[in-house]
Amino acid sequence: MFSSEPTTPKRERTRAHLVDVALRSFRERGYDETTIRLIASEAGVSTGNAYYHFPTKNHLVQELYLEVQGEHRAAAAAGLASTDDLVERLRVVYHAGIDTLAPFHAFAPGFLSAAMSPRSPINPLSSDSEPARDIAVATFREAVAGAKKGFPAEFGDQIPDLLLLAYLLLALFWVYDKSPGQQRTHRLIDRGLALLKLGLPLARTPMLRAPLREFFDMMAEVRA
Amino acid sequence: MFSSEPTTPKRERTRAHLVDVALRSFRERGYDETTIRLIASEAGVSTGNAYYHFPTKNHLVQELYLEVQGEHRAAAAAGLASTDDLVERLRVVYHAGIDTLAPFHAFAPGFLSAAMSPRSPINPLSSDSEPARDIAVATFREAVAGAKKGFPAEFGDQIPDLLLLAYLLLALFWVYDKSPGQQRTHRLIDRGLALLKLGLPLARTPMLRAPLREFFDMMAEVRA
Repeated sequence: MFSSEPTTPKRERTRAHLVDVALRSFRERGYDETTIRLIASEAGVSTGNAYYHFPTKNHLVQELYLEVQGEHRAAAAAGLASTDDLVERLRVVYHAGIDTLAPFHAFAPGFLSAAMSPRSPINPLSSDSEPARDIAVATFREAVAGAKKGFPAEFGDQIPDLLLLAYLLLALFWVYDKSPGQQRTHRLIDRGLALLKLGLPLARTPMLRAPLREFFDMMAEVRA
Repeated sequence: MFSSEPTTPKRERTRAHLVDVALRSFRERGYDETTIRLIASEAGVSTGNAYYHFPTKNHLVQELYLEVQGEHRAAAAAGLASTDDLVERLRVVYHAGIDTLAPFHAFAPGFLSAAMSPRSPINPLSSDSEPARDIAVATFREAVAGAKKGFPAEFGDQIPDLLLLAYLLLALFWVYDKSPGQQRTHRLIDRGLALLKLGLPLARTPMLRAPLREFFDMMAEVRA
């Protein structure tokens, strides 16, 4: 009686349909104007049934996150297949990520306000957001793993998380970026990578060993 | 008839009293629960009169910002008078800044949600926030200017703004910091300064000239 019921195809179809309608609504109306009541009505599903599948709007946002991270990964695939240079692979992943976010730029301030509180379940660092975050980290891990020559081995473990952190700060910058097509954000990616390209050969010099160790210790503090 | 009337002492007193009551309310109730109506009632002022002085809650928040930045500057003064070492002076200013924010930590998520949108008038980077921001930049400029040996001259102009940007990111970290007394934020300050201390002597070496130039070009893009 209390065992979980088998998932029926009909129930799955309803859920998938609600997700489709919700994703379109997030793209067209943004976060603030999207409500479960509205999604239910547009999907031709009773409000009660919609709430059964998605108890809160945040559950729908997590679907959006999964969709966007999946799109990001797919958008980066061709570029990643074309180069084994570390900096170029990161260039592919960062630009593809910002391109994937483009349709949401007009509504980004509403999303940001809702997601920014550390208590928000749609905060990208929340436990609810972990499945979407895992996809993003995997994308960065893949970018690094497929490089002919990677980061110095002693930094290896922390790198994908740090690349994600840089991506989240970049996305924050992107929300504020009013330039046409958010070209400043894309320029910032290229500037950051130019810096990395200059810095990578130096990372192995004895002179920079202590400062780099200190930098990674500092970032470990940020991630803790 | 349309000329601005002379400021009467009574009007000034009412305004100052409203500010006092509002600042206490922000400290005790946080951003979300503070309303102009409530402030008016607690100050014994008519709602209309309160709205005359502060048309929106955001005007009261700007008073809070000015107060907090002024407190920060005052809190750093003794420490700044005691050392002319650049890294130690920055240590004084960063720790004093986070200490000044301490009473607001419990309510910081509400403030953050309200302030984070680029459209928010209480965003620290908004034009409304410029007077408070100017005080903060002046505090950092003073920390740098009073150092026996400062940053390499070619970076001079950008430094105070970059120190403020680092401070805003630090404050963002602080909002998320659940450790007792936000000790992780204070440790992060010390880690960042240890990195600066190691890096400063290297900043003058030819090997690092190009990467540092690239870093400052990147940060110029962030600030533009």
